This record gives sequence, structure tokens and C-alpha cells, in this order.
Amino acid sequence: MTRTIKLAVIPGDGIGPEVIAEANRVLDAVLAGGDAVLERTEFSLGAERYLATGETLPEAEQAAIAEHDAILFGAVGGVPGDPRLKAANIERGLLLKLRFDFDHYVNLRPCALYPGVESTLKDPGEVDFVVVREGTEGPYAGNGGRLRAGTAAEVATEVSVNTAYGIERVVRHAFSLAAARPRKKLTWVHKTNVLVHSGATWQRIVEAVAAEHPEIAVDYLHVDAATIFMVQDPSRFDVIVTDNLFGDILTDLAGAIGGGIGLAASGNINPDGTFPSMFEPVHGSAPDIAGQQLADPTAAILSAAIMLDHLGFDGDAERVRSAVRADLAARGGAKRSTADIGAAVIAQLPPRAA
Amino acid sequence: MTRTIKLAVIPGDGIGPEVIAEANRVLDAVLAGGDAVLERTEFSLGAERYLATGETLPEAEQAAIAEHDAILFGAVGGVPGDPRLKAANIERGLLLKLRFDFDHYVNLRPCALYPGVESTLKDPGEVDFVVVREGTEGPYAGNGGRLRAGTAAEVATEVSVNTAYGIERVVRHAFSLAAARPRKKLTWVHKTNVLVHSGATWQRIVEAVAAEHPEIAVDYLHVDAATIFMVQDPSRFDVIVTDNLFGDILTDLAGAIGGGIGLAASGNINPDGTFPSMFEPVHGSAPDIAGQQLADPTAAILSAAIMLDHLGFDGDAERVRSAVRADLAARGGAKRSTADIGAAVIAQLPPRAA
Ligand SMILES: CC(C)[C@H](C(=O)O)[C@@H](O)C(=O)O
Ligand SMILES: CC(C)[C@H](C(=O)O)[C@@H](O)C(=O)O
Repeated sequence: MTRTIKLAVIPGDGIGPEVIAEANRVLDAVLAGGDAVLERTEFSLGAERYLATGETLPEAEQAAIAEHDAILFGAVGGVPGDPRLKAANIERGLLLKLRFDFDHYVNLRPCALYPGVESTLKDPGEVDFVVVREGTEGPYAGNGGRLRAGTAAEVATEVSVNTAYGIERVVRHAFSLAAARPRKKLTWVHKTNVLVHSGATWQRIVEAVAAEHPEIAVDYLHVDAATIFMVQDPSRFDVIVTDNLFGDILTDLAGAIGGGIGLAASGNINPDGTFPSMFEPVHGSAPDIAGQQLADPTAAILSAAIMLDHLGFDGDAERVRSAVRADLAARGGAKRSTADIGAAVIAQLPPRAA
Repeated sequence: MTRTIKLAVIPGDGIGPEVIAEANRVLDAVLAGGDAVLERTEFSLGAERYLATGETLPEAEQAAIAEHDAILFGAVGGVPGDPRLKAANIERGLLLKLRFDFDHYVNLRPCALYPGVESTLKDPGEVDFVVVREGTEGPYAGNGGRLRAGTAAEVATEVSVNTAYGIERVVRHAFSLAAARPRKKLTWVHKTNVLVHSGATWQRIVEAVAAEHPEIAVDYLHVDAATIFMVQDPSRFDVIVTDNLFGDILTDLAGAIGGGIGLAASGNINPDGTFPSMFEPVHGSAPDIAGQQLADPTAAILSAAIMLDHLGFDGDAERVRSAVRADLAARGGAKRSTADIGAAVIAQLPPRAA
């Protein structure tokens, strides 16, 4: 009985295609001999596509992507400052559009410091936490505008929109994750002393859900204080739940302390399964090093592992992670090409359990 | 010819009074034998005052504070979670109210790693930059509200308000600072790919002011990327200019990498001089260690030095900083009381130039 998984692949720009190629190779290797068959459709989207055709995300393509079981996403974005991209907003028009339209309300970003990986911190301790970033509202809502643009009297607003509906579902998801982890700890992060309106909504909901989970130790940090703990005592974190913008900031920082952004993986998850979830490395398209086999595909490979979890192939996901762990421990300071790292991870894949 | 400086002192809560006591001792010592005389008025404001009287910042007191040349501010805030403070918002009603009403549009936060100070980073390099945080608008405007609060249909908004007027004056200030520094480098930080409205206003203004300053090397970072550089390569920064919320986050992080938040000083500056500027350590009131002489007064002392700069006593400001530098280099791992550190800084004060 084979199961066909329809996978939409969006390699994107810059190093995106290189790292996605390795993630795909690892996926093929880890699924070989199992019951799953991947059926891939590639979508050529991003800054390059925009430059070639003026299109960002045509409706028909979005509809086609929606027919898939999951999306593997590389990175999008052209050379910073490219004047031809001035009018484009690939991030809002493509990446965020997919996150919003496909209701990826759980933006899952694990952070671990694997054995053998150097941290930028002198004494990081045990780092193993996961950030649950709200993915569909907050300051990312896109509301706001400019009045009298270009004049001395210009006013620009950004409206952060936060709903009980949106907060409750992501907070519940974070509590369930925390309940399944050994330390059973949840830290929610906001800036309630300043953003008093949305802060009150978050607080009310976290407290209500916490009351249903007496087994979970809950604490709160202002986002500014959270950055301090992130660099001074990251081992205090287990599950973090926070809003879209704070999550964006904290997860880049988490990536930097957890062995670098080259290892930071993520899943943009629609837990209901109404829409395909999307799995992407946290890093960007890094056009400056593109096409040279310099990029580390580990974040893309670990993102594929989160995808395997999501699709119910937990054993295979764990095999990928264990291969990455083994590779990282063996890596040392050697410079290897993107493809070398992909091959090394494949070589470390534990055999499929009989 | 003596000059009388009218200083409003707001020691505040928790460790505030302890650290402000040392800052005041250092001020007296450094000004002794000079032409300035400090005339202090103490204002008892903060969570304790609120608990005692229900008042946060009575109008008459605010008017009295406004009559001073400068404000020395400790820290405010009660024990987190104190139910009696639930209805209070000391931060918004006192600290932010002073910043906004006194038009402290330049929130100046230097970050340096002094010799002898341990960093949390393995290899920090030379850290010596200053963050110019906008202080009077952005997401701190307080606009927004809650609709259907307490129900499942609740919606909370936060409106970030950004004006050309507000951005231009702080950007100009940051460029002037950068022009006076040897490296002549300015990094502006925002999240222009997501907060497109305010991002466009910031970008337009930074580009216009940059055109008047060809001597300054300008670069841009998204706030999430800025946190990565802050922990991986902080020496790349010279002057950072950013909005109120990003500045809040980045300066706590900067404090953490620059030897800890116990050293992070700040000035809330109204460069026009229409209102008194306010000088405060970045740290909070830390009620858990209050009254035990455990707090490091260095941040408060360095904030007093920024105040001396602002009041035109540059030489005395530099004497304080040089005393702090000497004390930090001599400190080692010894545990000293708050008052011990104040005394040690005073002992290190270089003599007044003849
Ligand atoms: C590219 C950008 C829109 C995106 C975000 O802000 O979410 C990125 O920084 C991320 O974290 O995935
Ligand atoms: C206490 C709080 C309102 C304040 C801020 O957010 O500005 C503090 O974090 C700071 O950085 O001075």
C-alpha cells in the first residue's frame, strides 16, 4: 500500500535552488524502501520570475499549489537594492501571501544547539527549545497606509490586528506542544506594558488556556527581556509562544545563538489541514553566495524533516534529524560544498527499521 | 561664576533608589571644585507611590518636573504580577508619559564593551556603538484598542504612528552623531519588507538625509537580521538609528552582549531644550534584589555622565566615564555592594583639569 504525497516545490532565488536540491535528495533517500511516494511539482516563483515576467504569484499557480499535500520552499528575494525590484514586494506578495492565504497560523521554529556545533555564546548551556510564532496576524496584517506621502507632513501607520480567534488557536497549539515535551514549560513573549491592547488580549487568552494545563509551568517575558535571556541563559526556554513580529525577531536571534542561521529550520503549518503547510529554512536567498555551492543545506534538510513530522512520517523525520546530528558532530571545521553536505547527511541516514 | 543646575530626581522603585544614590554621589564628586552647583528636587513616583496614594503622575508634579534642567531617573515598576498593580500602568502612565510629553525624541543608548568586562559572546571583537532610538512615536503611540473585549470575537489593534516630522528629526540627529564619530557609519534598522508603509517613510527620509552626508557610510538591516549581527559581529555597528520598538528590543540585546544590562545607560533627550531631558539606566526596578545593595549602579552612573554631556559638562562626563572604565578594569570577579561600586568609581575619578 503506497501513499502518494503531492509535494509543491518552490526553490526560489539565490541559494534557494541549491539547498532545496539537497533537501529533495535527502527526502528521496529517507523515503526509499518505505510506503510513501513523492510526486513533485516545481513552481518557479520569486524575484527572478518577477524580473522575467512581472508576475509574483499568479492566481492559477496559487490554486495549483493549493492542490498539494505540502510545500517545500527555498528562499526568495533578489539582490538587495536592485532598482528593478523596487516596485516589487516579493516577501509580501509571495511568501507572506502563501502564509496568510493558506492560514499557516503556526510558524514552528525549533532551536537546538547540536553537539559539535560552535555557538557564538561563550557558555550557551543546553539549548533545545521551539518557538511557536503566530503566522497570520499581528503587525504582519498589512493594514495601515501613508497619508501625504512624500511631503513633510507625511504620516504612515501600521495596524497590528490581533484577534482572540487567532491568538487562541496558536496558544492552544503551543500548550499542546509543551505538554508533549519532557520539561513542560511555556514562555509567552509580548510587550504588554506598552502594547496594552493586544497585550491584554494575549494575556487573557494565555491565562485561560494555562488554567486548562496545570501540568505546564508558564512564565511571561517582555520581548526586550527575552532577547537578554536568549543570549545569557537560552537553556531556560522550552516552548515559546509569541506574536508574528516578535517571533520573527526572536527566531533569527535564536538561529544565531543555535549554531547559526544555516541550521535554522521552520514549518509554516496549517494544523487543520485545510491548506498545504509549507516548510522553509529561516535563512534568506543570500544572492551574494548563490550558485557557488557555498550554502549550507542543513536548514532546508531540517525543514524537510519537520515536513515529514507533519505528514505523519515521524520515524523518517527522526532518521533525518539523527543523520544531521551525526553529520554535524563529524563536520569539524572542514569546508564542504552544498552537495557534499547533502551527500554526507544521506550517508549518515540510519537504516529503516524493519 | 557658578551655574545652578536644577535637577529633578525620580529614584522610583526597587533598586532605583540605591543606584540613583550612587549616581548622585558620583555627580557631587565630579562637580566638586567646578562652577556647577546641583539643586535637587526629589519626586517620589512609581509603583510604591501608586500603591500608597493611587497616583501615577499628578499634573502639578509633572509641571514642577518641567521646571528643571534635567531629570535623573532610576527605575519604576512593582513586583511582577502584584494584583494591586493590575489596573495601574506605571510604564505608560509615568515613564512613557514623561518621554512623550517632554518630547524626548532621541533615546540615546550607547553600547560599549569596556576592557575587563566579560561578554556573553565568545568573540565579541571591539564593541562600541550607539543606538539612537526614536522616542516619541511608532508602536509606542498608544493608539489602538479592543473591540468585544473578553469575548471569543475580541479584536485588539495597535496602531504604529510614524510621521515624517518625527522620523526626520531623529534621523538628522543620528547622522550628526555619526558625523562626529571616527568611523562615520550609520546603520538604519527597520522591517521595510513587512511594515511597508512606515518602512517607505523611513527609507525616503534616511535616503534624503544621507544625500546631505556623503561622508557617512549608510547601510540598512532588517531588525531580525540586526539581531544576528548583534551577536555574531557587533563590531560592525557604529551608529544605529531605528524606531521606538525596534530600538527597545535591540538595546536590551546590546546591553546583554556589552557586559550586561547592569552597565547599559541611556538618555531620553529633547535636543531642542524645550523640556528637560531625562537620564536613566536601561535596566528595570528588579524588586527581587532591591534594598540589599546587590544592584550595580554603573548604568545609573553612566546615565549621569550622558546627562553631563547634555548639560555641556563634557569634561566632567569624560572624567566619570574614565573612572568607570578604570573601575571596571580593576573589578575582576569580586562581589561588591552598590555603595562600594559608587565609592570605587569616585576613587577613580581623574583630577579636574586646571
Ligand atoms: C522575508 C520575511 C518576510 C520573513 C518574515 O518576516 O517573516 C522572514 O524574515 C522570516 O522570518 O521568515
Ligand atoms: C519599561 C518600558 C516601558 C521601557 C520601554 O519599553 O521603552 C523599557 O523597556 C526601556 O527600554 O526603557
